[in-house]
Amino acid sequence: MAADEAAVRAQAEAVRRLKQDKADPDEIAKEVTKLLDMKAQLGGDEGKHKFVLKTPKGTRDYGPKQMAIRERVFNTIVSCFKRHGAEVIDTPVFELKETLTGKYGEDSKLIYDLKDQGGELLSLRYDLTVPFARYLAMNKITNIKRYHIAKVYRRDNPAMTRGRYREFYQCDFDIAGQFDPMIPDAECLKIVHEILNDLQLWDFLVKVNDRRILDGMFAVCGVPDSKFRTICSSVDKLDKMPWEEVRSEMVGEKGLSPEAADHIGEYVQLHGGLELVDRLLQDPKLSQNKQAKEGLGDMKLLFEYLSLFGIGGQVSFDLSLARGLDYYTGVIFEAVLLQQEKGPGEEAAGTGSVAGGGRYDGLVGMFDPKGRRVPCVGVSIGIERIFSILEHRLEASEEKIRTTETQVLVASAQKKLLEERLKLISELWDAGIKAEVLYKKNPKLLSQLQYCEDTGIPLVAIVGEQELKDRVVKLRVVASREEVNVSRESLVEEIRRRTSQP
Amino acid sequence: MAADEAAVRAQAEAVRRLKQDKADPDEIAKEVTKLLDMKAQLGGDEGKHKFVLKTPKGTRDYGPKQMAIRERVFNTIVSCFKRHGAEVIDTPVFELKETLTGKYGEDSKLIYDLKDQGGELLSLRYDLTVPFARYLAMNKITNIKRYHIAKVYRRDNPAMTRGRYREFYQCDFDIAGQFDPMIPDAECLKIVHEILNDLQLWDFLVKVNDRRILDGMFAVCGVPDSKFRTICSSVDKLDKMPWEEVRSEMVGEKGLSPEAADHIGEYVQLHGGLELVDRLLQDPKLSQNKQAKEGLGDMKLLFEYLSLFGIGGQVSFDLSLARGLDYYTGVIFEAVLLQQEKGPGEEAAGTGSVAGGGRYDGLVGMFDPKGRRVPCVGVSIGIERIFSILEHRLEASEEKIRTTETQVLVASAQKKLLEERLKLISELWDAGIKAEVLYKKNPKLLSQLQYCEDTGIPLVAIVGEQELKDRVVKLRVVASREEVNVSRESLVEEIRRRTSQP
Repeated sequence: MAADEAAVRAQAEAVRRLKQDKADPDEIAKEVTKLLDMKAQLGGDEGKHKFVLKTPKGTRDYGPKQMAIRERVFNTIVSCFKRHGAEVIDTPVFELKETLTGKYGEDSKLIYDLKDQGGELLSLRYDLTVPFARYLAMNKITNIKRYHIAKVYRRDNPAMTRGRYREFYQCDFDIAGQFDPMIPDAECLKIVHEILNDLQLWDFLVKVNDRRILDGMFAVCGVPDSKFRTICSSVDKLDKMPWEEVRSEMVGEKGLSPEAADHIGEYVQLHGGLELVDRLLQDPKLSQNKQAKEGLGDMKLLFEYLSLFGIGGQVSFDLSLARGLDYYTGVIFEAVLLQQEKGPGEEAAGTGSVAGGGRYDGLVGMFDPKGRRVPCVGVSIGIERIFSILEHRLEASEEKIRTTETQVLVASAQKKLLEERLKLISELWDAGIKAEVLYKKNPKLLSQLQYCEDTGIPLVAIVGEQELKDRVVKLRVVASREEVNVSRESLVEEIRRRTSQP
Repeated sequence: MAADEAAVRAQAEAVRRLKQDKADPDEIAKEVTKLLDMKAQLGGDEGKHKFVLKTPKGTRDYGPKQMAIRERVFNTIVSCFKRHGAEVIDTPVFELKETLTGKYGEDSKLIYDLKDQGGELLSLRYDLTVPFARYLAMNKITNIKRYHIAKVYRRDNPAMTRGRYREFYQCDFDIAGQFDPMIPDAECLKIVHEILNDLQLWDFLVKVNDRRILDGMFAVCGVPDSKFRTICSSVDKLDKMPWEEVRSEMVGEKGLSPEAADHIGEYVQLHGGLELVDRLLQDPKLSQNKQAKEGLGDMKLLFEYLSLFGIGGQVSFDLSLARGLDYYTGVIFEAVLLQQEKGPGEEAAGTGSVAGGGRYDGLVGMFDPKGRRVPCVGVSIGIERIFSILEHRLEASEEKIRTTETQVLVASAQKKLLEERLKLISELWDAGIKAEVLYKKNPKLLSQLQYCEDTGIPLVAIVGEQELKDRVVKLRVVASREEVNVSRESLVEEIRRRTSQP
């Protein structure tokens, strides 16, 4: 019976009168319960208003099917991180606000702050890199290879169909420590390759550049160094805007001279492999700039190592790659998916970057009281876009995805066998078998079989009067409808064998 | 060279002068870089202040060792949830503020709110139960068995040595749907038993009660129904306070009559098994109360099912168990560890509740626009206290815990073999072998072997001039120092065999 507001008012009045009349407490209790129930049914807090039934802007729930996809992707990524010898850490979802201050440049406005409820000022983490640097400095760790998979928060304009959320997972792998140049950097790029290959998305390209090459390029083009970071932000937009627009932002909004902009325009068109590195090492201007020269020298070394890893040909040195974050100091890179499948509703899903990272040698020093530097390089896998693609792909396909791992349903053929079912399933659970039972006293055999069909449970263990007398269980294979009687003692073994569980 | 504030000021002045003099841009860039570097070394945001290097109050980082423990515990719990056929879901870390309003009674003041930055008013989730109910109502799901493992947030007074944090994990398993009475409820208790047994902590006791029995008891003791919830909160404190204090809170602060309080005092001493249920079903007052009678009838059924599951003897029906949360409507339960190990610093770790839950049949209806009820029962494993115990235990023991899974270190016996090491490790990675290499051009063999000792890597694959000529790799077993030459082609197979990886 659905309650409406008038009925609730009437019931409240009835309760009031009972209390006034000092009626039997049981009677009052009963009527109060009814009143609370009716209020609850109104679907409002104290019946005063309706709830807005939604998740916060830019966020989503993951149902069992999405979670099954998500776990597959996570397993692939974690396997790769472990293959490369990484440990794992975790940090709190929020940090002291000042821990995040001054690390993200123009993006700082996207940080979520917590309300001041008396106590420390806190913000939700914006990425996993700054908390990692804080962790290293705080624990005086100078040498670690770790991964961290966790949610981060950005008050961005969400584009959820393309996998852009305000709450999203990052999967980070970082190498911290003072090492010989470019060996850890090359490993990060190898990891990107392995993961994108293992996920079997489709063709991708990894772009690399170096902050020192960018800064050297800005210097030789005549950009005043006070404008380095802001011009770098403009260059970063080249993957979304044509050069003409970026140029007019540089000249118009940011006050760069047209000559400097045009000069930059020539460089940022360049992309290639080792031969481009060699050419730029001969470039009359760049080769005179200390920063650029260092960056190009290391880029050459990087390409050598990449070809030892067998992936040199799939990496493109691209002078237009800038990456927005302030804290990079050396190599930067980004992986983009090249080609798009055209599944239904999928046009937009396959675009843009799915991984990125770079070297940040100064960040830990910003936290260390004595300014001790811990050089770091790392990669972050942008998992949400990958989820979106795989989710669309699964929806478009006929593939039925199981969301449980149940091996057997414990069923009964006749009525009044609940106790026997519960006894049997308890034995199975205690033996480590994944088993379910319908929560009904007397379920029909047909509905028990139907449940298996619907959820993909491969086996049914059926108890009946006769089986109980014979101390056997009838084991039915759902797919083939084959039925065999199995002795109670060998049931566990038989289920394991048939579901190939060791 | 450490920077100090005076040096930074001098450097800033030098940069200013260079710019004023329109010096060579390279020169300026170099000096600016030096300045930024010095500022970073000062360890402050723009050199203005020192960072406070800490995690927010009531939170902690998990380093690799803690994570190794945490993953063991999670694996045990997830295995159990999957054994019982649960699907998995995830929801955002924050909800609309109004989603949480009116669900937690007196505890609502502990909810973390986000700052109003323009947009929706948001709060961090306080538990996983309310988001689950919101998820069910929003997606019109009337039938699901799911688990959810995620962090929740409470602005409580932390007691971190005892595993009480402001950010902590909950591991929840819930069964939603209209079913025959007490079957899902009994399964939840079975799950608590399985998990606490599997974790091999120590003896524990599961207490159970029922909100209807509590409410019936309050009614027959003469508690006015407007005071049911607040008196229930007082009863909830009986595990931390003696009865005398609870009584004086009831009478003094909450204005209950001394007679009613004393009457309650008699009931809440009672605990036992099925025989107590039967006795109370004969209790002249309780048996006349409809609510209590229903609760006691279901309790009888619950004990029947528990004994079919073989755990009836380890469950105690305890009239003092109340549980604070407002949303429970039927069975409630809590698991407490009984006995404490006395490891160093461990005295406090082993106390209190490690799991709890109950039935909440009204919560989903509070969200559904049409007030449709979805009966639910669930259990939440309080994992942080369990971590604390296991962490202390591990610290006290000599057990060395590995934090990586690396199977082999690729090493070299002579100098100038970096390229060969990188080529070999790339082959191993591509074959799925977990392998590491030191990030040095010419590491000493001894330091490579030492790295294996330190991190527990069982095998070393050594390349040297002679091995390269012979197309073999020297495989060394770290523990036994045994060395064998293995042909390049069979290396992967040999590593797999020796680390018994399929």
